[in-house]
Order: sequence, then C-alpha cells, then structure tokens
Amino acid sequence: MANVSTAAVTPPVDGRWRSSLRVHTFSSGDSIWMEPERIWLVSRGVVLLNLLHPDGEEVVVGLATPGTAFGLPLTSLMAYQAKALSKTELMLFTLVEVESSPNLTQSLVRGLARRLRQAEGLLGITSHRRIEERLRHLLLLLKQEIGEPHPLGTRYRVRLTHQQLATAIGTSRVTMTRLLGKLRQERWLTYDRDRHIILTHAPGI
Amino acid sequence: MANVSTAAVTPPVDGRWRSSLRVHTFSSGDSIWMEPERIWLVSRGVVLLNLLHPDGEEVVVGLATPGTAFGLPLTSLMAYQAKALSKTELMLFTLVEVESSPNLTQSLVRGLARRLRQAEGLLGITSHRRIEERLRHLLLLLKQEIGEPHPLGTRYRVRLTHQQLATAIGTSRVTMTRLLGKLRQERWLTYDRDRHIILTHAPGI
Repeated sequence: MANVSTAAVTPPVDGRWRSSLRVHTFSSGDSIWMEPERIWLVSRGVVLLNLLHPDGEEVVVGLATPGTAFGLPLTSLMAYQAKALSKTELMLFTLVEVESSPNLTQSLVRGLARRLRQAEGLLGITSHRRIEERLRHLLLLLKQEIGEPHPLGTRYRVRLTHQQLATAIGTSRVTMTRLLGKLRQERWLTYDRDRHIILTHAPGI
Repeated sequence: MANVSTAAVTPPVDGRWRSSLRVHTFSSGDSIWMEPERIWLVSRGVVLLNLLHPDGEEVVVGLATPGTAFGLPLTSLMAYQAKALSKTELMLFTLVEVESSPNLTQSLVRGLARRLRQAEGLLGITSHRRIEERLRHLLLLLKQEIGEPHPLGTRYRVRLTHQQLATAIGTSRVTMTRLLGKLRQERWLTYDRDRHIILTHAPGI
C-alpha cells in the first residue's frame, strides 16, 4: 500500500543517476549520516528530522517524504539528525550535480517548496496558545505528509512516538499521552494494530 | 549601503523577464498582494511574512530577502500576509514560467534552500525553554538574514518592531521590550538613530 501511494511522488530521476554508489537503503530506526555539501533526495520511505538539544532532547523539526530533500546544505541547525521511520531509499547528490541537471533541479524545486510549506506549517502551529489546538493542527499537517487512505479515515504510513509528537509542538510526553487519549475518546482518532494513528472521518477533520 | 550589500545576492534573472508587467515596487509598510499559482521573487529589499491569527495577532514566520521567493504556492498557511519592510522590488512569476526556465529554476533552488534554512532556524528557536535564549538566537539568525557591516558591529538593514520580534519567538511585547533593554545594558546590542538594531562585537556574538 505504502509503495503504491508514494510512487506517484517519486522524483523523476534519470536511470543514469541510479548507480549503486549513490543509492542507499535504510531500515526503520536507522540513523542516516550526513555530509557537508551533499544532500539526500528521498525516493522511498519517511525520514524524521531532529534537532539535538544541549539538554539531550531530540526536537522534531520536519519529515522528509518521497520527492523531498534534506542535508547539511539545507539546514541552519548545528546538531541536526536524521532517522529512517520506515524502510527508506535515498540518493546522495552534491549540490553541483543537482545544479548541472535541469531534471534534478526541477525535482528539487518542488521538493524544497514542499518542505518549506511543511516548516511554515510547523511554525504556524507553535504560535497557537493552547496545546490541544497545536496537536490537532499537527495531526492534520501530518495527515497531508504521511497519510494514506484507510477504511476508517486516514492512516499514518509510519509510527510516531508520543515523545516525538510532543517535541514537535513543545510539550511533554505525559501531556501528549493525555491529549491523544482525549482525542481517541472523542473518536477523532484511533490506532491500528501496529499502533499507527488513524484520523477518523469525525467532524472537524 | 543597502543596495550595495544586496546586489550580490540579486537573482541572475534574464533581461527578458524584466518587463514592467512583471516588476513591481513597494514602499516600506506596504502590504503585498498574493495570487494563487504565482510566486514573488525578491530582487531588492526585505519582506516580512506573517500569519494572521484568528485572535487578530500577526505572527512572524519569516523574512524574504533578495534571491528568495514567497507566495501562496510556497506556504501551507491559510491567513498568510506579506509586508514590505523597506523599498522593495519584486518580480511575479507563474510556477510554469519558473519551471520552463533553467535559469529561474536554479535561482529558485538556492532561494528556497535559504528560506528553508531560515524556517528550520526559527523552529529550532522555539524549542528553547528560556525566552532570553530564544531572543539571542533570533537576533543571531536575523544577523545572517538582514545584517550589514557597521563600525560598531552588524546593523539590521530594516527596522523590526518589538511586537514583531515578540511574535517570532512566542512572547509578549512587554517581555520583548524588557529583554531588549537587558541586552542593551549588557552592551550586546545598541540602536542607531533610525532605531535599527546593531549587534555589537560583544563576546558571544
């Protein structure tokens, strides 16, 4: 199911770029290394982008999905980390390679625009005063990014922990668990047996 | 001075794009209209990007500087506003025009990467617990975006109000005024006669 729904947004990368040196696969939970002057283009899977705080907390700042890119040239954050949330296929490019290929450049424009929309969406969320409002907006933003059709509504293709959801909106894991319980009681969301969130067709979604 | 320092990052747009229909100038304080499917490319000046909250508050989510772009196709926010912070020259493009010109596409990749770095920087800032830490990081981020050399340190090319700085880091105007007073007393920053902030060469900058 995940493969079918992501295939449509896989970047149209020429066969000549698909050498084994350039294509790397990661399993769920793997950390993804990053190099100066190089960017990763996601062709399959979902990558969680974290900022590691001096106090040791990992703060979620984004998700990279198929067609989008991430890497040190695309961030201003010093302690930047990337982790695969599912089986992931990535391609490594230098900036010079990207800029010398009209095909790659066009893919990158669309992918960067999408990540910028996501980042602005997250910035908009943190401006809400009430944590519950933030959470509802975060869940709807994630629906666009990692949602796939499900008989009960929209299912997230990957599993996010309560801790990860909490740092994305600046709250604690305990509060997140309580709020998700509340939304579940309201039947705004439910879980499948793999603990992936399903947003239901409840009013307001 | 501002013109000299911004000239280097003006996008290399062909002369043929510079028709009078496409190029628009705005004065400081002007609101900039936006159209679906069209993006603005900044060739001169600084544009403040705001999210208008239901409670009427304008929350700063970004600054568009020369070489960068903004517009409805590049945001996920519903109540998005743009305002010129200085004399500004902008060029209006459709997405199809941008994608059909390798020259424009390359400019846009660099401009989008820069805006993404800025947005992630802002996301990183809101994750700091202490408001004073947030403010110092915001001022350093703005130094990169709108700073120009000054005998005392780095001067912001445009003036930002205490209210604007406050919403960018999720605090009140009153707190912002108090914290800026504290940083001024520490000689971390000062103002010129136009009330533009100057970050001094104090330790830690």
